[in-house]
Amino acid sequence: MSLRDELLKMAQAGREAARVLSLAGSELKNRALCNMADNIEANKVEILAANEKDLRAAREAGTTGAMLDRLTLNEKRVKDMANGLREIAELPDPVGEVEHEIVRPNGLRVGRMRVPLGVIGMVYEARPNVTSDAAGLCLKSGNAVILRGGTEAAESNRAIGIFITEGIQAAGLPAASAQVVRTTDRKAVAELLKLEGYIDCVIPRGSKKFLQWVAENARVPVIRHGDGNCHVYIDSHAEIRMAEEIAYNAKVQRPGVCNAAETLLVHANIAVRILPELLSRFTNAGVEVRACERVREIYPAAKEATEEDWKTEYLDLILAVKIVANIQEAIDHIAIYGSGHSEAIVTQDYLHAERFLREVDAAAVLVNASTRFTDGGQFGLGAEIGISTQKLHARGPMGIRELTTTKFIVRGQGQIRS
Amino acid sequence: MSLRDELLKMAQAGREAARVLSLAGSELKNRALCNMADNIEANKVEILAANEKDLRAAREAGTTGAMLDRLTLNEKRVKDMANGLREIAELPDPVGEVEHEIVRPNGLRVGRMRVPLGVIGMVYEARPNVTSDAAGLCLKSGNAVILRGGTEAAESNRAIGIFITEGIQAAGLPAASAQVVRTTDRKAVAELLKLEGYIDCVIPRGSKKFLQWVAENARVPVIRHGDGNCHVYIDSHAEIRMAEEIAYNAKVQRPGVCNAAETLLVHANIAVRILPELLSRFTNAGVEVRACERVREIYPAAKEATEEDWKTEYLDLILAVKIVANIQEAIDHIAIYGSGHSEAIVTQDYLHAERFLREVDAAAVLVNASTRFTDGGQFGLGAEIGISTQKLHARGPMGIRELTTTKFIVRGQGQIRS
Repeated sequence: MSLRDELLKMAQAGREAARVLSLAGSELKNRALCNMADNIEANKVEILAANEKDLRAAREAGTTGAMLDRLTLNEKRVKDMANGLREIAELPDPVGEVEHEIVRPNGLRVGRMRVPLGVIGMVYEARPNVTSDAAGLCLKSGNAVILRGGTEAAESNRAIGIFITEGIQAAGLPAASAQVVRTTDRKAVAELLKLEGYIDCVIPRGSKKFLQWVAENARVPVIRHGDGNCHVYIDSHAEIRMAEEIAYNAKVQRPGVCNAAETLLVHANIAVRILPELLSRFTNAGVEVRACERVREIYPAAKEATEEDWKTEYLDLILAVKIVANIQEAIDHIAIYGSGHSEAIVTQDYLHAERFLREVDAAAVLVNASTRFTDGGQFGLGAEIGISTQKLHARGPMGIRELTTTKFIVRGQGQIRS
Repeated sequence: MSLRDELLKMAQAGREAARVLSLAGSELKNRALCNMADNIEANKVEILAANEKDLRAAREAGTTGAMLDRLTLNEKRVKDMANGLREIAELPDPVGEVEHEIVRPNGLRVGRMRVPLGVIGMVYEARPNVTSDAAGLCLKSGNAVILRGGTEAAESNRAIGIFITEGIQAAGLPAASAQVVRTTDRKAVAELLKLEGYIDCVIPRGSKKFLQWVAENARVPVIRHGDGNCHVYIDSHAEIRMAEEIAYNAKVQRPGVCNAAETLLVHANIAVRILPELLSRFTNAGVEVRACERVREIYPAAKEATEEDWKTEYLDLILAVKIVANIQEAIDHIAIYGSGHSEAIVTQDYLHAERFLREVDAAAVLVNASTRFTDGGQFGLGAEIGISTQKLHARGPMGIRELTTTKFIVRGQGQIRS
């Protein structure tokens, strides 16, 4: 069987499963989720053994550091996977809800019913826990999912896939509700992206380069989980202590993630009062500061920032710092260099806060809060399947509701069009 | 200047305009809409003269019938264009609305603010009124638009574009808010579809073949206005008179549009009671009936339907008719052959009505109402820019709200992530 045929067969099985899932009630889906969780915990030995194979191969290939860490499972991480599924079972089920029902002058009742998307393709790298998280979120939202993780995690994903499927089947739902692509042939992703008419949407997660490749090769709709070149702007009317805490938190609390800040913009009127102490604190925390000329006059220890620095998502302990003349210059800087992820202002000025919220074009715009809050859990959506930086369909953290669409439902009493 | 450079320049001007438009208040946008309407009416002589050039060229090229009619403007149609813009001015403005604001346990207020998409590419055929309709809907929703109509309507669109732009400028908004692509080079559409990063979304309208071509060539997100292979299913528990009226209306009232019915499904238990009279009525109205064997036993005048008939969107006075054993067979038939546009059931049975609403997967599912109601105006959205048959972002009739997206806005008091 050719690779395309193999994937097509999975997609067709997914379609069948999706039709069953779309009609499954919350209780049934929740039972499947709890089964999946129990089964993963009951088989942790097998999962860890499979993971060990991936780890050995990765070490032999010279993988180290953060990459190896992302690939690693241990008892705690397996337990977290299981608990993640149980938390998804606790979330409210959006499927079947009717929104915005109105009555038209001719008596027609027109509403929008939330329904699943159908078959979702999930394409991701390294972390094996994405396999169970994505399977759980798609199942709860009534979607079938085809999971294609990184080749480096193939054994772990295969094992997790088996125990997920068993859990789903034990609840009486179709095995094809969540399918793991087993081939390690890298062409499988390209084939998956071409199954228009079978796959309703692909959600890729991974490096910027990988996402770009997906966007260029996809014939099915893609929800892009984009990069985060996020800014914190400290306004002239900021409360100094609050500004320091937010800027520090946004950069240092977890620098390797997409909602960490990369550039600090500071109003000229407050720069001398805030920068010496704040930048020292950054330096002491191991953050490399790259700054514009005016900042370097105040804080000579900073390196010189180049044009490239304003564009870069470091995902590391590096911070670009720039002094701006006013809020307009801050908003303009963000419009030019921001990636539309998360942008924060620190200010006590009502008009500046409202203006920043209104004018900055990003998935999340925050006043007096750290950019690190852009997250499905923090925003109250429950678990998230990704953070979209595109504008169509879903923008910002995506929970189970964002894995659904609506259909118009119309209740009449014999109306015809004249 | 190369074609790509020319379009890129338009897209860049569009981006600048979009930033201004996104912040423009409703009063200002409404003033621009009324100016556009007044200016179109004031210059109807020029518009009709430009249209006459298009019509002459079309007649010389042998265009006739419906195609020539779609291309034709007259005083009434120009007035309708102007009034359409005035009606858009009356619609509520969704931009800036905040939805679903919640307070998190840590005190963060998290809401979603409606914001424009940015720059929209509108690619369409024949009808010149789409130029003013689309310009109006995009402007009201705060988006810049690049309009590329059919080559056959180039002169009409160029003229309408001039008077629209004048109206927009007179209100103090940027001329690039609505730009008409002037070149008749067909490659312009292909170039437009490749301007990712400049154009936020392309909305194509036209033939199935054209839409397919757009889907295959687009690098920017596309909202597809799909075809409608719509069904009316007459259930065993239907009220006979109501079923006849709905089936007849769905097919005959305006057969050339996407929400007209193409196939009639009839429950076996009611077929003998309803079909002879109903199918005679269709035949008398000039409708060609193509039917399954069981229908032909009841109504021998029907032609034999082939597999192809169940798949076809006739857009004409042709109706496929099939007897089904039960509601399950009707739902299955629609799942196989339907295009996901509009599907109607006629029934007095509560469970059947609810089941049809829940199980049928289409942009609009109707109980005891004609499929012809699937329309932005009829559904209470105001004017529509198209009817989406895709699942992502917008499904069904798209009004100005569907031309917007949301951003998360977060109001804090100094919260940091721990």
